[in-house]
Amino acid sequence: MSEKNSLAKAFKSTRYQISGHGKRDVQVLKDAFENIGGGQESDLYGTGQVIKDFQDKMAGILGKEAAVFFPSGTMAQQIALRIWCDKKGIKKVAYHPLSHLEIHEEDGLKELHHIEPVLLADKNRVIELEDVVNMEEEVSCLLLELPQREIGGQLPDYETLESISVYCREKGIALHLDGARLFEVLPYYKKSAAEVSALFDSVYVSVYKGIGGIAGAVLAGSEAIIKESKVWKRRHGGDLISLYPYIISADYYFDQRAGKMEQYYEDARELAGLFNRCAGVSTLPLEPVSNMFHVHIQAPKEKLESALTDIYEETGIGLTSYLRENDNEGYYFEVSIGDQYTRVSEETLKKAFQMLDERLGEVINA
Amino acid sequence: MSEKNSLAKAFKSTRYQISGHGKRDVQVLKDAFENIGGGQESDLYGTGQVIKDFQDKMAGILGKEAAVFFPSGTMAQQIALRIWCDKKGIKKVAYHPLSHLEIHEEDGLKELHHIEPVLLADKNRVIELEDVVNMEEEVSCLLLELPQREIGGQLPDYETLESISVYCREKGIALHLDGARLFEVLPYYKKSAAEVSALFDSVYVSVYKGIGGIAGAVLAGSEAIIKESKVWKRRHGGDLISLYPYIISADYYFDQRAGKMEQYYEDARELAGLFNRCAGVSTLPLEPVSNMFHVHIQAPKEKLESALTDIYEETGIGLTSYLRENDNEGYYFEVSIGDQYTRVSEETLKKAFQMLDERLGEVINA
Repeated sequence: MSEKNSLAKAFKSTRYQISGHGKRDVQVLKDAFENIGGGQESDLYGTGQVIKDFQDKMAGILGKEAAVFFPSGTMAQQIALRIWCDKKGIKKVAYHPLSHLEIHEEDGLKELHHIEPVLLADKNRVIELEDVVNMEEEVSCLLLELPQREIGGQLPDYETLESISVYCREKGIALHLDGARLFEVLPYYKKSAAEVSALFDSVYVSVYKGIGGIAGAVLAGSEAIIKESKVWKRRHGGDLISLYPYIISADYYFDQRAGKMEQYYEDARELAGLFNRCAGVSTLPLEPVSNMFHVHIQAPKEKLESALTDIYEETGIGLTSYLRENDNEGYYFEVSIGDQYTRVSEETLKKAFQMLDERLGEVINA
Repeated sequence: MSEKNSLAKAFKSTRYQISGHGKRDVQVLKDAFENIGGGQESDLYGTGQVIKDFQDKMAGILGKEAAVFFPSGTMAQQIALRIWCDKKGIKKVAYHPLSHLEIHEEDGLKELHHIEPVLLADKNRVIELEDVVNMEEEVSCLLLELPQREIGGQLPDYETLESISVYCREKGIALHLDGARLFEVLPYYKKSAAEVSALFDSVYVSVYKGIGGIAGAVLAGSEAIIKESKVWKRRHGGDLISLYPYIISADYYFDQRAGKMEQYYEDARELAGLFNRCAGVSTLPLEPVSNMFHVHIQAPKEKLESALTDIYEETGIGLTSYLRENDNEGYYFEVSIGDQYTRVSEETLKKAFQMLDERLGEVINA
């Protein structure tokens, strides 16, 4: 078994994990359906009370005229961008070099929609107003991801968002929000989902990140945009006869967790502080602006894995199941705070971080 | 309230319905998950035991090297056709004028994949060898739907299938099976799913038609084709983080119902006989070759709806919730036999058909 697998294995055996809401298992579905009567009717190809109610609820929360439930954010976002491109007649959109569309979707936007991306900003920072103003090519739409996940969940200032929104409206560029983790950034911005969404022409939110549902996404916008998106949803093969397993669980966990984002944010800041006090460790961002951050560690992989495995075994706390190489010959992993963090005792956590600091100190000083 | 709505309403109030497995409600999910432990792990973006096991099982049943679970048949089939077109370098496929791809998918194949369909055969009959041989345009793939749903579920002779398969292999045309209702036709053909599938290069089956799952589809074929289809599945936005709500229910209902297709077929023939003995009624096909058929009735809509509503109220048996215009100034509806038919008492059924015959007789002789 490789070192990597033994880290994953050790992680799997831990009693507490600092990230997430808990295991992605069938219990997640069972809990969501426990109080749903068997007689509750299914949705039917996008119609029916169960889908309508949730869509209306999300449209209200996002302050948009309408919303539609999608099986995935990949589908929802490609479709939103396609609609904006068709509307303007220019098959170009701008987004960050590490956008989900650019690195995780097998080029669906290009292969299915023949839309060309214009990559804005250096990959290590968020898009600023200047990047938008200095863009040389004409695009139909600008997509902003809040927070920018692949760089630890960074955010532009709220004033930057506002000025980008004003600029785009002046220039006739549609502004789309990749809000996979929109609810998670609201405590930092001190804004409501509707206030942030008001800056954008279309908004996608995920129901299985901070919300912790099973799968699915919501796209919100004007009546006209949402109507058109339903046609594309069918074309993509996303207009399933029944989406209720995802919808009912999304609704259930939304009600449980939408109000806990402040807590997750505070927990993330506390935990990032613990990491940053360890030798050779720094979080990105240094001070989290949502429930997430990346942990970068400058240490040889083998020794790092060995240290982590020992910590997991001794304390029962799992910090990460994997390590990825970063640009500085070190390693990193992602932390997203959810319900699990509060289950970890302060005492044990303190011990785990003491061990981490000691072991990394030994490695660095060796 | 319109007449149409009152028919739907009366239907909804009936105790027994002749079609289907029962209401599409949350109980369908609850039953499937009743004996699944909460600790059962989710699939994760197409990986994990729960999706692998079901895919392997379906590959085995369909006699193919590999299979992949899709959220929808719309997605699975467009992708299969795209792969065949890319392979041959010709963006044309042949299928029936009433193929699902042509009439129910908002032109996804054309709009997303830029594939042009060549429509074979008259819309009122199935594709024969002659249609394929006489095709003037060169295509990458021929799609056959078994049974041809929109004309009541008709089938070509098995010898025709074999000869089309031989011809396509000679000519280098990939043969794809739209087997949304493949399991449902096996009793008529007296063949296994693997035997029928062996005639085809790729095979799609639905898990929520005769099988009665919640949603989802399986695409089966060679290792190479299935591997490529997974890339397209991600591009389409179908590579969900969790598909287990559909997979576990598909597996559960497959095990319950795959062995009952003979029964459904026999029941369909019996029920079609009852319809055909009524004045002004004929089924298409006259003798069903699967669990499904269409019922055509030559009568004015208002009188027909009034007769049906009365029958529903008096007998508690629902025959259809809707009527569609046919090409002969009459009306039709679809019947698909499932578990519900056996719940209807013979006595009451006899009474319902007596009433139908009498009422239609009055209408016709008026």
